[in-house]
Amino acid sequence: MTTHAIPEVGRARTVIECVKPEIDGGRFPVKRCIGEEVIVEADVFADGHDQLRCLLRHRPATAQVWTEVPMTSIGNDRWQASFHVGSPGRHQYTVISWVDRFLTWRHDLARRQDAADIASALRAGIALIEAAAGRAGDDAKLLRNWIDQLSAATVPAESQAMAQNESLAVLLAAHAERLFVTEYDRVLEVVVDVARARFSSWYELFPRSCRAGDATHGSFAGVIERLPDIAAMGFDVLYLPPIHPIGRSFRKGPNNSLAAGPDDPGSPWAIGAMEGGHCDIHPDLGSAEDFRRMVDEAHTNGLEVALDIAFQCSPDHPYVQQHPEWFLHRPDGSIQYAENPPKKYQDIYPLDFECKDWKALWNELKAVVDHWIGEGVRIFRVDNPHTKPFPFWEWLINSVKAEHPDIIFLAEAFTRPKIMHRLAKLGFTQSYTYFAWRNTKQELMDYFIELARHDSREYFRPNLWPNTPDILPEFLQYGGRPGFLLRVALAATLGASYGIYGPAYELMEHEASKPGSEEYLDSEKYQLRHWNLDRPDSLCDYIARLNRIRRENPALQSDWNLSFHAIDNPLMLCYSKTAGDDTLVMVANLDPHHVQAGWIDLPLAALGVPEGKPYQAHDLLSGAHFLWQGSRNFVSLDPQASPMHILRLRRRLRSEHDFDYFL
Amino acid sequence: MTTHAIPEVGRARTVIECVKPEIDGGRFPVKRCIGEEVIVEADVFADGHDQLRCLLRHRPATAQVWTEVPMTSIGNDRWQASFHVGSPGRHQYTVISWVDRFLTWRHDLARRQDAADIASALRAGIALIEAAAGRAGDDAKLLRNWIDQLSAATVPAESQAMAQNESLAVLLAAHAERLFVTEYDRVLEVVVDVARARFSSWYELFPRSCRAGDATHGSFAGVIERLPDIAAMGFDVLYLPPIHPIGRSFRKGPNNSLAAGPDDPGSPWAIGAMEGGHCDIHPDLGSAEDFRRMVDEAHTNGLEVALDIAFQCSPDHPYVQQHPEWFLHRPDGSIQYAENPPKKYQDIYPLDFECKDWKALWNELKAVVDHWIGEGVRIFRVDNPHTKPFPFWEWLINSVKAEHPDIIFLAEAFTRPKIMHRLAKLGFTQSYTYFAWRNTKQELMDYFIELARHDSREYFRPNLWPNTPDILPEFLQYGGRPGFLLRVALAATLGASYGIYGPAYELMEHEASKPGSEEYLDSEKYQLRHWNLDRPDSLCDYIARLNRIRRENPALQSDWNLSFHAIDNPLMLCYSKTAGDDTLVMVANLDPHHVQAGWIDLPLAALGVPEGKPYQAHDLLSGAHFLWQGSRNFVSLDPQASPMHILRLRRRLRSEHDFDYFL
Repeated sequence: MTTHAIPEVGRARTVIECVKPEIDGGRFPVKRCIGEEVIVEADVFADGHDQLRCLLRHRPATAQVWTEVPMTSIGNDRWQASFHVGSPGRHQYTVISWVDRFLTWRHDLARRQDAADIASALRAGIALIEAAAGRAGDDAKLLRNWIDQLSAATVPAESQAMAQNESLAVLLAAHAERLFVTEYDRVLEVVVDVARARFSSWYELFPRSCRAGDATHGSFAGVIERLPDIAAMGFDVLYLPPIHPIGRSFRKGPNNSLAAGPDDPGSPWAIGAMEGGHCDIHPDLGSAEDFRRMVDEAHTNGLEVALDIAFQCSPDHPYVQQHPEWFLHRPDGSIQYAENPPKKYQDIYPLDFECKDWKALWNELKAVVDHWIGEGVRIFRVDNPHTKPFPFWEWLINSVKAEHPDIIFLAEAFTRPKIMHRLAKLGFTQSYTYFAWRNTKQELMDYFIELARHDSREYFRPNLWPNTPDILPEFLQYGGRPGFLLRVALAATLGASYGIYGPAYELMEHEASKPGSEEYLDSEKYQLRHWNLDRPDSLCDYIARLNRIRRENPALQSDWNLSFHAIDNPLMLCYSKTAGDDTLVMVANLDPHHVQAGWIDLPLAALGVPEGKPYQAHDLLSGAHFLWQGSRNFVSLDPQASPMHILRLRRRLRSEHDFDYFL
Repeated sequence: MTTHAIPEVGRARTVIECVKPEIDGGRFPVKRCIGEEVIVEADVFADGHDQLRCLLRHRPATAQVWTEVPMTSIGNDRWQASFHVGSPGRHQYTVISWVDRFLTWRHDLARRQDAADIASALRAGIALIEAAAGRAGDDAKLLRNWIDQLSAATVPAESQAMAQNESLAVLLAAHAERLFVTEYDRVLEVVVDVARARFSSWYELFPRSCRAGDATHGSFAGVIERLPDIAAMGFDVLYLPPIHPIGRSFRKGPNNSLAAGPDDPGSPWAIGAMEGGHCDIHPDLGSAEDFRRMVDEAHTNGLEVALDIAFQCSPDHPYVQQHPEWFLHRPDGSIQYAENPPKKYQDIYPLDFECKDWKALWNELKAVVDHWIGEGVRIFRVDNPHTKPFPFWEWLINSVKAEHPDIIFLAEAFTRPKIMHRLAKLGFTQSYTYFAWRNTKQELMDYFIELARHDSREYFRPNLWPNTPDILPEFLQYGGRPGFLLRVALAATLGASYGIYGPAYELMEHEASKPGSEEYLDSEKYQLRHWNLDRPDSLCDYIARLNRIRRENPALQSDWNLSFHAIDNPLMLCYSKTAGDDTLVMVANLDPHHVQAGWIDLPLAALGVPEGKPYQAHDLLSGAHFLWQGSRNFVSLDPQASPMHILRLRRRLRSEHDFDYFL
């Protein structure tokens, strides 16, 4: 072996390490929404005692020129600066630093003690300022002025003090000699999404159950009739299961039975029939024009329509005839249906992503997404992304968002943690979570501390669903009305994004297909349902109140600002969220069967409440006002009435007896 | 913006993430010594339900061909395998994986339930085995045998069971179809060092204080006379401060006084004079031949000689005349001495690593190291590496070790944590630590949990020094003989590598130059010292016992195996180290002034001691034997006698009443 070559950057004396945020060494971008801040930190240091300069650089990925922000030392060789992201798309950032001769000179000069030493150092400093003047253009005159002043001083101590002037430092910083600069060896990226990527309230329904007039099969026209109610409940995303023609071969009957009757509609996820495939619409739902009208009406009602992307085919899908090479064939030549032995799904043909013609397949699937974007869709809920290759999704999402940076993809993957995280890293805008199965105090705290605090929050945006058409959790099966009140209130306050599958939720549909199952009895997945939306016990008013509180309180529009607080009852949960002046304290009774009470203990200083004075806790759900004092206060919750307080703390007091109720 | 290109590796369905060990995304190597294990872990998973194969690849950095080791799943999508490193030098490792069609087929087949299904799957499996036979060379016959057997079975269940046979799986693994393989995108490296890099006992002395016969100035001949004693104390590294000619300009006198008398020898770190520079020897110490003789004699005594590398010059160094361009010049043309205002070090000229001729400077400094390697030196203790650029050290160490992988570099940097870590990452074999200033129970536990457990242990090898010529800690100034006993015993048992500066240590030199200072009074740095090595209170026997225990007990030869245990006295510390059968429990009294006693609580199962039976704790320091039972036992330590137990647990009992004392 031979001596290594001397690196050309051998005089770059500063080191830049441990830049955050950074995912997997920069392999993946972090995520933000328009207007949000990216706080960048780095370990930066140099050999010896010299002073250094450290700059955060950032730019839109399409730009050539960097914007530079000085980083400041926050101790232990850690430096920090931040920037705000503007429009949707990719934004880049990195860090540069160098040993700064002027700052070092200034720092040392202040510490010099004898006159000869100061005089000698002044000559060196003036040379530095003179050199800066040579680079300074219009500022040269100002710099030469400084030289004159420093030279004119008769007492060394006078120049010594003058050299510490901040105006001089600002001039030198503007025209710094960037000698032997260290550039961090990675350019990092942030994907900037529309605001709805962070804060969204989803309502899922089956259009085929939305009958217009006296039709037997629901339709887009029926959905349009429901839009005002959904908007009144406060939702801003309307998510529709697949709207495409449904296969007839091996069609499933009610309750997932193998034999469908002639009038059974089949599962919307068995996509494709004589009438068409992924770009086509089930004839009973309406026409393409009807679809576009529904999208427009949704917009008018403040709702974005989210479509289901389920990349799988029924045996009757046109692809099966047109592109048999996209499917896996068995030795006898037949196409392999989906299976997870011993389970068989004969009504579904999976696409074979290992096939020879895979690039054509990828392009076709992207064309499906592009088609619906062309039809006005901005949000896609992707079905089972964890059963298709990761590189495919990364390419698809990045390609689509390069053209349409406002598109949102929600990953419907209820699978192992590392797989869910990979999907989020590679580009999914939001992710379903384990929330439906987190019920106890410890489970909720552990999981939400992970979601709100761990580094994974940089890329994993949770979307909390207390139910879905596939998931009727045990807690809802047996928790009665309090269980439904509690779980939606937890979802709406623990998560900035959440959703419910309705009308099953607000009508408290709770019967499972069989004991121990999380499948709904008479699930809409396999049959049409008629919902009595006028039932007096409907939760729609409660949900509307939750969503109004969410809209009116910025504290509930972020996931990162969650903190848990002590409460001395293991069946109760206490947490807060704060945004600026808006501080909400949530207290939940996790027991749907009994009244629970306990003492909460709040960190008043952290919540911005002055100690030693009474303050008001206003329950935004019930309207009740509590007068509290000190950190420990008593709370009792009857789950039949309301299993949750959402308490807004009124902390600006005009006088001790005059609360600012209307802040 | 346009659609992204489809990646060619789009069918590689497995993902490899979070490989450990990996430092800063593979920017730096990890460290091991000859014979040690590298346990590699990775998150590996694929889309869907298919089974995957995962291989650890490793090879010497000079080799082309990888050795492959199957990784096994350890849960939560984490996979693990390991390899042992052989000879010193660089070794590489990485991970590959793929979705394995045979394993998937086998896994699914076992779960299939109806005969037609099994029969169809068997045909597909036989096709896979046939394809493997085509790749299998000599094994083809064995594989075709399997096909015959699988085909011959009359009952499907018979073939179904047969297909699970491990021999078949082994054959298929050997001739696997590696389809759409994912290669981890980094090749990681491990620097393999000689064993002494992990386990070493250092003794530092000033050769100029080692007088041979009645000479007034010490010499290599005098060092040779001391070698048997140092070896008898059990040390294996003899470290010498700089041995070069010492400058006369601005020479420092005793106790760092500015005015040196004509006979004052000056600081050995003021390197360079009329007689020569960094490749030359102080004339009073001897000739190059004398030096080589000393190195040889040291080897004969089981000692390696470590030289001091201090890249700085006295004003009289030949470089100053020959290469004035390597120094920083002030506006008046004079060369800038070292300073950290208001402190001035006029006897030292720092090298200017930002100079125009920096590459020549780097090459010259490497030539210095190469020179001493040529003279038989294998270990360098590098003085203040944190005041020279990091890229220089990385290049120097990597270049030297590329030619001489057995060389050890110890970084003498007592500075901020991130700087110390950077030096270790970039290549220093061992590092000085903050041990000298960690005295309380909490300080010691916090620091040693960091050193033994954090990821930084992959690159940061601590070397613990209770004293150095620059550091006489307060604890030694005021702790009396118990303080000296305690601190060396802590160093020798908490660290696999440690060192003392002697004879100051064993003679308990404890007077500081002034109150509040850590400088020795009458420091050998500035004057010759005569040490009375025959003093009856010398700690040399105690130190010899410590080093013998270290040599005889593999448990003390590693840093990673440290665990702390409970003891109910805040002035006492309890910890253990285990290697194979060798389990040592250390109990220390951290109070040098009083007897302290307490109850320890040991995790017996973890230490391999059967519960419910008595066991013996044999104090290897005092020779005492204690009969213990259960996890809680009483310990009392009189610091005047011995502030520490080093207890070897005798855990193999021949019968309940017959201890294996001599295990």
